[in-house]
Amino acid sequence: MYLGKVYVSYKPSVFDPQGDVIKKSLNQLGFQNIGQVKQGKYFEIKLTDDSFEEAEANLKKFTEELLINPNTETYQYDIVEDEK
Amino acid sequence: MYLGKVYVSYKPSVFDPQGDVIKKSLNQLGFQNIGQVKQGKYFEIKLTDDSFEEAEANLKKFTEELLINPNTETYQYDIVEDEK
Repeated sequence: MYLGKVYVSYKPSVFDPQGDVIKKSLNQLGFQNIGQVKQGKYFEIKLTDDSFEEAEANLKKFTEELLINPNTETYQYDIVEDEK
Repeated sequence: MYLGKVYVSYKPSVFDPQGDVIKKSLNQLGFQNIGQVKQGKYFEIKLTDDSFEEAEANLKKFTEELLINPNTETYQYDIVEDEK
């Protein structure tokens, strides 16, 4: 059993107003040492594939088909063994 | 300059209907080897603090104050050096 972690964020060219709002809120709370803020999505997916290679191939396929919008978003992932 | 990455997910006891919907959609697309799916949030925050220790202390503080709801959500984070 594997645990896939997928981190989705906007491509650098895409305007992220939510991130800008969070940055302003942090400044107002007194946190001044804040550069750019980007908000994205995070998925944890338990994968019951038999091998790491299968789990990785499936994760990449379904992430690109379902989890992200390839026009505006990009992603990174980790896959770890999961005993549970 | 540091780059903070914050991964927010629901606590295990919290019901996550969005994750369940994604799991069903994956199954319908033909991906059968899927266990539990959890959807969370992902933040990338550029930190202009002078030291790693300051950056880490600030990140923990503002994450708990602003980015998460401590009743229902939990978080993990990474901080890496960022030259940009």
